[in-house]
Amino acid sequence: MNLSNATNLFVKIRSNKLFELFVISVIIASALLVGVKTYDVSSTMHTITNYLDIFITTFFICEITIRWLAEPKKLDFFKDFWNVFDTIIVIVSLIPIENGDMALIARLVRVFRVLRMISFIPELRILLTSLIKAMPQLGYVMLLMFIIFYIYAAIGSTLFEDINPELWGDITISLLTLFRVMTFEDWTDVMYETMTVYPLSWIFYLTFIFFTAFAFLNMVIGIVVNVMEEEHAKVREEHQKELQDEVTAEQDEKLNNILAEIKKLQQQVAKQN
Amino acid sequence: MNLSNATNLFVKIRSNKLFELFVISVIIASALLVGVKTYDVSSTMHTITNYLDIFITTFFICEITIRWLAEPKKLDFFKDFWNVFDTIIVIVSLIPIENGDMALIARLVRVFRVLRMISFIPELRILLTSLIKAMPQLGYVMLLMFIIFYIYAAIGSTLFEDINPELWGDITISLLTLFRVMTFEDWTDVMYETMTVYPLSWIFYLTFIFFTAFAFLNMVIGIVVNVMEEEHAKVREEHQKELQDEVTAEQDEKLNNILAEIKKLQQQVAKQN
Amino acid sequence: MNLSNATNLFVKIRSNKLFELFVISVIIASALLVGVKTYDVSSTMHTITNYLDIFITTFFICEITIRWLAEPKKLDFFKDFWNVFDTIIVIVSLIPIENGDMALIARLVRVFRVLRMISFIPELRILLTSLIKAMPQLGYVMLLMFIIFYIYAAIGSTLFEDINPELWGDITISLLTLFRVMTFEDWTDVMYETMTVYPLSWIFYLTFIFFTAFAFLNMVIGIVVNVMEEEHAKVREEHQKELQDEVTAEQDEKLNNILAEIKKLQQQVAKQN
Amino acid sequence: MNLSNATNLFVKIRSNKLFELFVISVIIASALLVGVKTYDVSSTMHTITNYLDIFITTFFICEITIRWLAEPKKLDFFKDFWNVFDTIIVIVSLIPIENGDMALIARLVRVFRVLRMISFIPELRILLTSLIKAMPQLGYVMLLMFIIFYIYAAIGSTLFEDINPELWGDITISLLTLFRVMTFEDWTDVMYETMTVYPLSWIFYLTFIFFTAFAFLNMVIGIVVNVMEEEHAKVREEHQKELQDEVTAEQDEKLNNILAEIKKLQQQVAKQN
Repeated sequence: MNLSNATNLFVKIRSNKLFELFVISVIIASALLVGVKTYDVSSTMHTITNYLDIFITTFFICEITIRWLAEPKKLDFFKDFWNVFDTIIVIVSLIPIENGDMALIARLVRVFRVLRMISFIPELRILLTSLIKAMPQLGYVMLLMFIIFYIYAAIGSTLFEDINPELWGDITISLLTLFRVMTFEDWTDVMYETMTVYPLSWIFYLTFIFFTAFAFLNMVIGIVVNVMEEEHAKVREEHQKELQDEVTAEQDEKLNNILAEIKKLQQQVAKQN
Repeated sequence: MNLSNATNLFVKIRSNKLFELFVISVIIASALLVGVKTYDVSSTMHTITNYLDIFITTFFICEITIRWLAEPKKLDFFKDFWNVFDTIIVIVSLIPIENGDMALIARLVRVFRVLRMISFIPELRILLTSLIKAMPQLGYVMLLMFIIFYIYAAIGSTLFEDINPELWGDITISLLTLFRVMTFEDWTDVMYETMTVYPLSWIFYLTFIFFTAFAFLNMVIGIVVNVMEEEHAKVREEHQKELQDEVTAEQDEKLNNILAEIKKLQQQVAKQN
Repeated sequence: MNLSNATNLFVKIRSNKLFELFVISVIIASALLVGVKTYDVSSTMHTITNYLDIFITTFFICEITIRWLAEPKKLDFFKDFWNVFDTIIVIVSLIPIENGDMALIARLVRVFRVLRMISFIPELRILLTSLIKAMPQLGYVMLLMFIIFYIYAAIGSTLFEDINPELWGDITISLLTLFRVMTFEDWTDVMYETMTVYPLSWIFYLTFIFFTAFAFLNMVIGIVVNVMEEEHAKVREEHQKELQDEVTAEQDEKLNNILAEIKKLQQQVAKQN
Repeated sequence: MNLSNATNLFVKIRSNKLFELFVISVIIASALLVGVKTYDVSSTMHTITNYLDIFITTFFICEITIRWLAEPKKLDFFKDFWNVFDTIIVIVSLIPIENGDMALIARLVRVFRVLRMISFIPELRILLTSLIKAMPQLGYVMLLMFIIFYIYAAIGSTLFEDINPELWGDITISLLTLFRVMTFEDWTDVMYETMTVYPLSWIFYLTFIFFTAFAFLNMVIGIVVNVMEEEHAKVREEHQKELQDEVTAEQDEKLNNILAEIKKLQQQVAKQN
């Protein structure tokens, strides 16, 4: 009973509009704090940001604890991805920022507190979920694209290694160079360099650009078609029902009417006998 | 009565085809004038453009006044966004162009008189309205994109600040650098620079490009799907009615026919009694 | 009669498969000739290409004349756009190539003979027609885009003229520079240069990129939606008829059956009387 | 009988899950081996990779032989594109890698063994087949695009050859330069260079960019529309049947009911006589 009362209290806090507003303000504040720290600030300011950081960390611990206590079944809390996500971000940011060696990592970890914005705004959560859901559909196109990249990278680092080892030294560097070519970033410089040795190497670049552009296009079209089919399926279902309802409604009445008239007629005839 | 007569006169002027044509000519002239002023012109030409400017300003004031006077309810005039828009542009361009300190601002303000073209051509107005209407739908995708940018900018200015403060000095500069990376503008130069210190920093750029490209793609697809759904909804409604009408029209007649024959039969049987 | 016989002969020649094949071979040969002339060729080769050129020109004149003579009504020949197009290209390429002053122009004019390929392959003609048809739909988006470009160019050449007159000298140069910015071609170099004087000028570039990208996106979506709506309209019409036919066919039979049975019943009752 | 038994054995081996898993592991290993060889490896490692290479080649020969022996009709094996594809890749990689002159070619050939991944994963095979199927639809757009490229390249190498022979030397080089302009890669550098001689040459570049962008857009839209139409056709067929079935099902019952009642009435009347 006592425990249940406490749980109720935490549920009330968690659902309180003011509390929610305050949490979101603290998240935004933590995001701004991350931004402020990238500027060269005065010593006083530095101390203030540190105190603010401690406050935000403490507040986040309290908030997560409240939400955990508000959960009727304590273990279910960790079945929700976003709760786990929040908890990890909060726990990891417990690393003290002043510690010499870890200072950089501690600062970087705090950056991810901005991600709590996503876990707090339902629309962003839906958006991210739908983005992640779209991934596996693209799996095979991506595998195909990787195979194309891999083959070209292998050919590239075999043929062009001696021309420019910085661009074609080994397969990893070649993959990066090919990604650069795909984004059209100074790709002609890369091409002209190898064309001095192999005058026909433009075939290598043009076919690569053609294949990746084609695979990329296919991926985009794949997503568009998928998204639209889903939308259509939804609309169609509703539409179909409406159509049936309206088409049949009027005629149904007439058919019922006809049946009633026939029954009347049967009674008339029966009376005659 | 007198006032009403005057209003009628102004309404007539406003709706006059010649007047409309003249207004649009003056708008185009003001646009050309803005263009001419960017050339180094002779002193005589300079004086001419100044006189033309005074004429255009005066004409615009007259035109707006006429349209204001032609309005039956004077206050309703300012309820229309485009009237307010026109009035502000005209009033602001009253700043004298010869005044030393303000000359630059006065010239810039006159540039916006070109925008009156949009308020005058209904198709452009519709286009702009539909563009603005599409914005809120994109709100959450843009927020997500900003969060991605913000996190990467924070990480970037934390890690790379010492490598190149001109690109990663603080979070604002980092955001600009990341926008540059997103447009693939010499992004490899930025990357190769940081890779000399952090050889794995290509992960930073590639994941960033991947996330923003994916979010951007999603935004585009979102708009396409939205626009098409609206179009489909319109077409579907018309289509549905047509379909129902045509499907039922013929059968309805048959059903009515059957009912009539049954009635006839009932009368036959009734007569027998 | 004599004239008609001649016309028939020309019609026969025109529709002859071998003649068609030969014409297309000559068009391709003229295209290749244009290509060959861009190489530094030996004196002998040069003479050969010149003779070939004379042959092609002569052949094209004959071919056009045959097609003109094959036309029953001589004036209708020039009512077809592609005939006029072919005739102009052939006539213009009569300019002698050896003439010193005109040599360059004569060579350029001969390049356009490649365009005869389009007038000869029906699929390409359809493609081009559909491309041209799509243009007016884009008219207003393009006008809007031009207004955006014009305003930014005016602002740019007002503010940045003294910083780099080569990029922002007058409104024409500014328009070209802005087109360059829109294609993301070294746009940051342009921006960083102006940011040294106006540190906030990144707003100018980012808003410009945003507006043009948005207008461009709108244009693309507009075309996609238009094309698809047309396709859908076609399919829908067929689909609708089919649907109606199949839905009603079976039920119609039943309704007819019912009506027949009622008639039978009426006769039965009539007999009783 | 004996032969049939042997065939059965090979069929069993071919369909064995473990065998399939092992084959795919060897394919991945051969891909990794190709990658490893692009690094500068120690002499020991070099020997190992060579032995591995011999093992992979031997294994692939055995595997292809097994699949060939498992085929009931030996000649049908070569009717399947993917079998021929696999066989060629395996046979070609028999070229010894240690042979001085051929070493480079032998290494390149081995790269294509990665392509066996595509022939082994059905989803990738389907993807590639659909990519290849989409090609002919694009044929005419590509021909149109090539004509545009060819004309511009001919004009370019006629006018600009003396300005920069490295970019506009002959028609082949010009085509490559134009492809570079289409990808917006330092295209302004190319333009500014020719503008020093022909100040109006920006028209050349802008119209080229406009035409190719427009043709490219058309191509993309063409693919999107095609893909969607196919999808719609599929869905529509199913949808149509469902719609008909559900619309008619209920009404059919009513019509049958009415008919039954009329029959009953006929019997009543018949009894009266």
